[in-house]
Amino acid sequence: MSNNNIIDLFLNPKSVAVIGASKNPVKGGYRIVNNLVQNNFKGKIYPVNPNSDGELFGVPFEKSVLEIEDEIDIAIFYVPNRIIPGLLQECIKKGIKGAIIEASGFEEVGDQGLLLRDRILKITDNFSKIRIVGPNCTGLTKIDGDSDAESSEKGGFFSSFVVFDKYRHGNTAIITQSGMLNGGYLMSIMENYPNLGIRYSCAIGNKMDLSEIDFLEYFITDPSVNIIAIYLESFKDPRKFIKLCQQAKRIPNKTIILVKGGLTAQGQKASQSHTGALAENSQLIKAVIKQSGIIQAKNFHDLFQFANTFSMVYHTTKILPKEGNVSLVVGSGGAGTISADLTIQYGLKFPILSEKTYQILKNFFPEWMPPNKFALVDIWPTMEKAMMNRINPEIIMNKIYQALLDDSKIEGVFSMMFCSSRFRNMSNFDKSIESFNQMSTKPLFFYLVGDKREVKRISRLLSKNNIPNFLSIEEMIKNFSILVQESKSKSKN
Amino acid sequence: MSNNNIIDLFLNPKSVAVIGASKNPVKGGYRIVNNLVQNNFKGKIYPVNPNSDGELFGVPFEKSVLEIEDEIDIAIFYVPNRIIPGLLQECIKKGIKGAIIEASGFEEVGDQGLLLRDRILKITDNFSKIRIVGPNCTGLTKIDGDSDAESSEKGGFFSSFVVFDKYRHGNTAIITQSGMLNGGYLMSIMENYPNLGIRYSCAIGNKMDLSEIDFLEYFITDPSVNIIAIYLESFKDPRKFIKLCQQAKRIPNKTIILVKGGLTAQGQKASQSHTGALAENSQLIKAVIKQSGIIQAKNFHDLFQFANTFSMVYHTTKILPKEGNVSLVVGSGGAGTISADLTIQYGLKFPILSEKTYQILKNFFPEWMPPNKFALVDIWPTMEKAMMNRINPEIIMNKIYQALLDDSKIEGVFSMMFCSSRFRNMSNFDKSIESFNQMSTKPLFFYLVGDKREVKRISRLLSKNNIPNFLSIEEMIKNFSILVQESKSKSKN
Repeated sequence: MSNNNIIDLFLNPKSVAVIGASKNPVKGGYRIVNNLVQNNFKGKIYPVNPNSDGELFGVPFEKSVLEIEDEIDIAIFYVPNRIIPGLLQECIKKGIKGAIIEASGFEEVGDQGLLLRDRILKITDNFSKIRIVGPNCTGLTKIDGDSDAESSEKGGFFSSFVVFDKYRHGNTAIITQSGMLNGGYLMSIMENYPNLGIRYSCAIGNKMDLSEIDFLEYFITDPSVNIIAIYLESFKDPRKFIKLCQQAKRIPNKTIILVKGGLTAQGQKASQSHTGALAENSQLIKAVIKQSGIIQAKNFHDLFQFANTFSMVYHTTKILPKEGNVSLVVGSGGAGTISADLTIQYGLKFPILSEKTYQILKNFFPEWMPPNKFALVDIWPTMEKAMMNRINPEIIMNKIYQALLDDSKIEGVFSMMFCSSRFRNMSNFDKSIESFNQMSTKPLFFYLVGDKREVKRISRLLSKNNIPNFLSIEEMIKNFSILVQESKSKSKN
Repeated sequence: MSNNNIIDLFLNPKSVAVIGASKNPVKGGYRIVNNLVQNNFKGKIYPVNPNSDGELFGVPFEKSVLEIEDEIDIAIFYVPNRIIPGLLQECIKKGIKGAIIEASGFEEVGDQGLLLRDRILKITDNFSKIRIVGPNCTGLTKIDGDSDAESSEKGGFFSSFVVFDKYRHGNTAIITQSGMLNGGYLMSIMENYPNLGIRYSCAIGNKMDLSEIDFLEYFITDPSVNIIAIYLESFKDPRKFIKLCQQAKRIPNKTIILVKGGLTAQGQKASQSHTGALAENSQLIKAVIKQSGIIQAKNFHDLFQFANTFSMVYHTTKILPKEGNVSLVVGSGGAGTISADLTIQYGLKFPILSEKTYQILKNFFPEWMPPNKFALVDIWPTMEKAMMNRINPEIIMNKIYQALLDDSKIEGVFSMMFCSSRFRNMSNFDKSIESFNQMSTKPLFFYLVGDKREVKRISRLLSKNNIPNFLSIEEMIKNFSILVQESKSKSKN
C-alpha cells in the first residue's frame, strides 16, 4: 500500500476498533468513542475491552479485535504502554492495517520505552504488517462539517481522547508533535481566529512509524487543503521534507507554515522528555527551513494568525504582493511614524506615488500641508479640509482609497481604523470597504483601534468579507510581510 | 518660576481660559469646555470667543482674555494657527503664565510654519513671558478619580479636544508626541489593559517650548507616578534626557518605558510631516536609549502592556527578578518546548532545581518519567499519577507550586493554564493561586488558553489580584524579561 493510500485509510476509515473503550466518562477510552459517535462518524465503531460487558452508545463491547466479524480498517489504542505489543499482534492477526497509539511512555522516557519500541518493531516487522500513528499523541481529526451545522452535515472523524464539541470546517491541515493542537487548544484556536477552518489535524506524537513526511505528502496533493500548519520537534527526513516543501511551491494556493520547537539547548531538553526528539544541530534546522522556502512562525499564536490570514486571502481573488510595495493610510501622525518604522523593519516599502495619484491626493489636502510623495498617507488634514468645506469626509476617504488601489506600483493597502460607536450612524465606510475590496485584487489589511465593542463589530464584518484585520499595528504589518515572503518564494520555484 | 513649578501650574491650574470655545458641538472648542465641565474640573473656566454671545455650560462667553477680571493661570488655544500670535500677546498682557496650543500648522508644515514660530519666539521673548505646551497637540490630562466614581471624586483636569468619558485613575504618566495617546486611543488603552490607570497624559506636540525634559523632571519626583510611558519622535536634549533617566533609576518603583518613532528613514520622513522632527542619527538614538538605561518598546501595544505589568508589580510587594532565573510550569509538552525556546531567546534561564525541590517533585512524578533536573516542569505526568492513585490533582499542583516558590534559586514562576468551564466547578485552583501569590515575593505570571469566556473570567480574577496574565506565551515571557531588565539597570545605578 502506498503511503498516500495508507494516510487515506487513516483519515477515512470505514470501520474502527477502539481498544481500551470504557464506560467511565473520565477515561480517555470513553471520550474517544463519544467523539466518534457525537461527531457523526459515518463508519462502524467497535468498542474493545476484555473487562467490559454490555454496550457503549448502543454498540456492544468486544473482548478482543479477534472477536469482531467485520473487517476493521483502523485500531485506536487507549491502553497502558505495557500491553500494547500483545494487542498489536492481535491487530496484525485480524488484518488491521493501521493503529493510532495515544499512550505515552516510549522513546520519551528513555531505556524502558526504547525496549518497548524495539518489541513493536519486531512484532510489526518494521511496520510492514501494520502502520502506526503515534505513540504519545492525541490521534487524528478530519472535519467534514461545522459543529453547528445540520446533524447530517456536521462532524467527520475524531479520534482524540479530548472531547471535541465546537469546530469549524475549512482549508487548513495541521501536522503536530504537540497533542494540544489536536486537543482543547484546537478549539480555542478556532474560537480566536474566526476565518480559520480546519480540514485535518494530525497529532503524530513520537512518530515511531508515520511522520510529518507522510502527512505532508498527502496534504500537498489534497485539493481541500490550502494551508499546512506544522509543529515539529525534530525532522524525520530533512531531505524529503525540503523536497516536498519545494514541490508545494509549485502548487497554487498551497502554503506551508512551520513552528520548530527545540531551537535552543533548553528547548531541546524539553522536547526530549516530550517526544523523545534527539537534539538537532541548529545550523541544520536553519538550513532545512531556508531551503524548504516555507514560512517559519515563532510561536503558536503567529502560526495560526498567519494561517488565518492565508485562509482569508485564498478565499478571494487577491494577488499576493510580489515586491512588498504597500500604501499606509492613517489618521494619526504618531501611529503613522511607528507604522512606517515597522513597515521598513519588516522588509516592506512605500513606493513613490504616480504623478496621477499624487495630483488626486493633493487636491484633497490643505494647501499648507500637501501629502507625502510616497505612499504613506496621513488622511487627517484631508478630513479637516473636507469638514471646513462642508463635504462629507467619507466621500474624500473613498476617493483616496480608490486612487491608491488604482496606482500600479501599490500592491496592497493597510489602514488604521478608529472604531467608535459615536461615528457608527454617521458612516457607511464599512460598506465602502466591502465594495473596494471586492473590486480590487490587491489585499486590504486593517488595524482596528477604539471602543472594544465597536472594534469587535467591525472586526466581525471585515472577517466575514475575508478582509484581514488586526488589533495591533505590528501584527498587521507582520502578516502582510508573510504574504510577500510566500509570493517571492513561490516565484523562485 | 522653576520648570517644576510651571509644570505644576499647567497640570493644576486654578483657572483656565478656553480661547476658541464654541457652542457648536462638532468643534474642538466646544469639546474642550465640555471635557472640563463634565469631568469635574475644580478651577474656574472662561470660554473666550469674540464671535460668540451668551453662555456655554452656564458660563458667559468673553470676547477676549483681557475682559476677564479674575486671574487666569492657563490659556487653552483652539483657534487657527494664523491668529495665535496676536492672541498670545493678549495673554501676556493679561499676565497668563502658560498656554496650551492645540492647533497644527507650525514646524511640521515647513517655511510658513517656521515664520509663525519665529513670531511667537519674538512675542514671548523666547518663552520668558509665557510658557507653551504644543503646538500641534491634544493638550494635558490629569486624572484624580475614575470616570465611574462618585461625581465629587471623579475627573480632574482634561484639556484635550477629544471627548473623555471613560478613564481610570492610576500610577502611570504619559508623555507623548502622538496626540492619540491623549485622545480616543487613550480610552481604548484603559479598556484593554485593565490594571493600567493613568495619572497624567501630556501631549507635547511639536514641543516648541516645554518638552519631554520638563515633564520627565516633574514626574520623576512626583510620588503618585510609578511608570512613565513616553512616545517621542525626537530628543530635545539627549544629555539631559539621559541624566534624568539615570536619576529615576535611583528612585524605587519608578520605571521609564519609551517608544521611539523615526527609527528608519521612512519613519523619519513621516515624523517630519507630523511633529516637524528633524532626522536623527540612528547611532545617536541607540546610544541615548542605551545610556539612559530605560526600557524600549517597539510599538504602542508593548508600551502599554509593559506599563500594565509594572503597574501590577508595583501594587504588590513583589521583588523584581535580578538574574532572570525562572521556573516554567506547563501541562503540554509542545507548549513547554516552545516556551523553553522563547525563555532562552528572551535572555532568561531555568536554574537547576535544589536537591530538596527535586526530591519533592520526584515524589509526584511516575517512576518511569522523573521530572527535569532544571526548573521546567511538565506537570501532566503528575496529574495522571494523582488521578490513578485517586488523589485530587489540585493538591499535588499546589505542592509543586509551593516547592518551586520556596526554591531560593527561582525568582519567579510562569505557568500555562488551560481554562475550561468544564473544570470550573471541580477546581479551586484560582483560590490557591491567590494565596500563593500573596505569600510569595516572587512574581507569578500566567499564560491563559482555552474557552474564550473562561479565559476572560480567570483573567479578570488574576488581574484583580495584580497577577500578570497573557494570551500568548511570548507576551508572558517578554513581559517577565523586562522586569529583569529593569532590575538589572536599577542595580547598576
